[in-house]
Amino acid sequence: MNFEVNSGATDAITGGTTGNNPRENGTANLTNPVNAYARAGVDTQAGDRAVELMKTAVQATQGPEVLGGTGGFAGLYDASAAGMTTMRRPLLATSTDGVGTKIELAKAMRIYDTIGQDLVGMVVDDLTPAGVRPLFMTDYIACGRVVPQMIAGVVEGIARACQAVDCALVAGETAEHPGVLGVADFDVAGAATGVVDAPRLLGPQRVCAGDMVVGFGASGLHSNGYSLVRRIVADAGVAWESSIPQSYGVVAPHGSPFADGADYSLGHACLEPTRLYSRLCLDLENSGWLAARQAGDFVGELDGNRVHAFAHVTGGGLAANLCRVIPAGLHAVVDRSTWQVPGIFRYLMDLGGVDVTSAEDTWNLGVGMVALVHPDFVPATVQATQRAGMEAFVMGTVSDGIPAGERLISGTKGVSGGTVVLRGEYQY
Amino acid sequence: MNFEVNSGATDAITGGTTGNNPRENGTANLTNPVNAYARAGVDTQAGDRAVELMKTAVQATQGPEVLGGTGGFAGLYDASAAGMTTMRRPLLATSTDGVGTKIELAKAMRIYDTIGQDLVGMVVDDLTPAGVRPLFMTDYIACGRVVPQMIAGVVEGIARACQAVDCALVAGETAEHPGVLGVADFDVAGAATGVVDAPRLLGPQRVCAGDMVVGFGASGLHSNGYSLVRRIVADAGVAWESSIPQSYGVVAPHGSPFADGADYSLGHACLEPTRLYSRLCLDLENSGWLAARQAGDFVGELDGNRVHAFAHVTGGGLAANLCRVIPAGLHAVVDRSTWQVPGIFRYLMDLGGVDVTSAEDTWNLGVGMVALVHPDFVPATVQATQRAGMEAFVMGTVSDGIPAGERLISGTKGVSGGTVVLRGEYQY
Repeated sequence: MNFEVNSGATDAITGGTTGNNPRENGTANLTNPVNAYARAGVDTQAGDRAVELMKTAVQATQGPEVLGGTGGFAGLYDASAAGMTTMRRPLLATSTDGVGTKIELAKAMRIYDTIGQDLVGMVVDDLTPAGVRPLFMTDYIACGRVVPQMIAGVVEGIARACQAVDCALVAGETAEHPGVLGVADFDVAGAATGVVDAPRLLGPQRVCAGDMVVGFGASGLHSNGYSLVRRIVADAGVAWESSIPQSYGVVAPHGSPFADGADYSLGHACLEPTRLYSRLCLDLENSGWLAARQAGDFVGELDGNRVHAFAHVTGGGLAANLCRVIPAGLHAVVDRSTWQVPGIFRYLMDLGGVDVTSAEDTWNLGVGMVALVHPDFVPATVQATQRAGMEAFVMGTVSDGIPAGERLISGTKGVSGGTVVLRGEYQY
Repeated sequence: MNFEVNSGATDAITGGTTGNNPRENGTANLTNPVNAYARAGVDTQAGDRAVELMKTAVQATQGPEVLGGTGGFAGLYDASAAGMTTMRRPLLATSTDGVGTKIELAKAMRIYDTIGQDLVGMVVDDLTPAGVRPLFMTDYIACGRVVPQMIAGVVEGIARACQAVDCALVAGETAEHPGVLGVADFDVAGAATGVVDAPRLLGPQRVCAGDMVVGFGASGLHSNGYSLVRRIVADAGVAWESSIPQSYGVVAPHGSPFADGADYSLGHACLEPTRLYSRLCLDLENSGWLAARQAGDFVGELDGNRVHAFAHVTGGGLAANLCRVIPAGLHAVVDRSTWQVPGIFRYLMDLGGVDVTSAEDTWNLGVGMVALVHPDFVPATVQATQRAGMEAFVMGTVSDGIPAGERLISGTKGVSGGTVVLRGEYQY
């Protein structure tokens, strides 16, 4: 593992190489620390320290399929080691995202090592709906000043989450923008690439009348709706350190990094990292494929599968995202009473006077991922989800009748497909 | 092509789908514009207008290998259409970067449609040193407010540059951070993925004594050293709109978007978009491979090639980047007098009192990409470069003797390899 950083002054670039990770840091690395560039406000040593701190966590994400690149300009990943060369028709998939203004909450609370999981959740779980297995990811951090512990904390969080979803973190860039961003300011974004064999691609083309809608529990707000959250909390004059009244029953979810703390505050509840569904969903996809093979099911050019599609519940809430995988002519009927909305949402609604429609159009209200499965596969789906430490909710069905309910949602996010029908009342 | 955006309020996400481009915008898209979320400061319509404006440019980057993804959650790219399934051992490569503080100059000049080429140059030409062909790219824009013309201008610039290097722009995210970033503030980053067949991987493993060092002319400062540039200009109290004294001989380079303007100002010279080398370098790689096949050359497990490696001259300047592709035990001797340093560098050095060492450790000084080639292949390299409208400089040789010169540079950017020796005086 090669981590040295020696001579050669640099600009928006430098730093060490993390094993096979060509991490570049936006700090100058100067033989003479008092040169023109140092005077321009770029810290010379902080980048190296940040790289040193994050080294172990990044290396842990890299299996033998990650190769040293040419002079560390880019990260290399052996596609044959990933099984791509034996696929019938490998499709690469890519997604990119940030964490929205949730990052402002992380800064306010000075907790830097959980936002990385939010990033991986937002990026990698946008690959999941198509049944795509993540291969590798890159991250980009813009900051006002490279504070080594802060930057390393963010990257370590990304690396740990990458490891949890079997995704290599192969390259990263930290750009220092002195004088542009404040010294404590930063933003983080990422991009991931994965692969799926075309005959196993999931999506609306597999979804049919009679399919069941199974929701997987969220760990909290995930990474959407934070402009509204921050506005509500600011307008109410409530501190992030304050406790949520016990009547809301807000407790740390399974796997919470804040579960062991003495005080579980409003800030902790709002900063809960986004749950990662990729591994569970890919396991379900594989079990559903095996089950279909045993039953002799095939769907045209697609392999048969008891699992038909997933929808990642991000901005816009449940209906706007579920819509995206319902084919034209069909509708998914979701009964709002089939799961309990976590207390943090009810608290924020009460605090801000947010009506139910605004809330369900903004937040996930407790459901972070939705599976559309063959009715026979519902018990297996529920069991696997619970074994993974998450709640599973059988929320509704896909139908080809005439849609009816309190709200009909269709045509969201540029996808013109089927409709989602919301019925009933939420349980709190 | 599906571009509609309908019901479903959203947070850090929404917008339309650009053909197969799941572009997501950080603006709410509300059925009722006066709801809680709109009150939180998120503009409801601007994202849609931005997507509409950028649509044509993005679509132009997408060939038949780009497929519609599942509900637009991620972009899909057919690896077999890219020839990956017939490769002997396909290696995927990925890189990520931003444009540093050059973006501040774009904002100051309110020129938004050139910085995208800088992004593509920084990201895609970090794949080039290994001989990697770019397949697809994603972009991420963080902004204080979605100003449709600004965001669309940036993305159109990215798309045009992607098209120029045969890279599909398959997904993008625009994140609006109201109240965090100023209304005119934005930052842009990107990530690209490409492929190379392992036996054709370029790099230091191919470089040997006797190789020639051929530099390709830069279009200007490219995207590094802007913290220093901005400090120099601010300290000197010079306006971006001012002219550079004629004695420096600064003229718009070949292909400049500012060549037709009445006034070619300091700001224009500093904002010149980064030259793109990917297509030229990949063409050279292919010619060099054909030439080696005809000569019957092979190098162990690698196919023979008259082209051995490229070095992308970014942060840290020529020597720090050339170092990365020189193998241990060898040194590249570069004669500074073999090319003429463009006037913009001399002007900035004079204006800021920057010494030669600081300048050559920060800026490219007129050489944006370096090729290491077999001596027989120098004429073909020079001719192809000139045909592509760029200057080619035969700058030096690779040697295994005892290195001697004014400066010996090695071990940069975490790569412990050979040495670069700089000799002689720059010509201005």
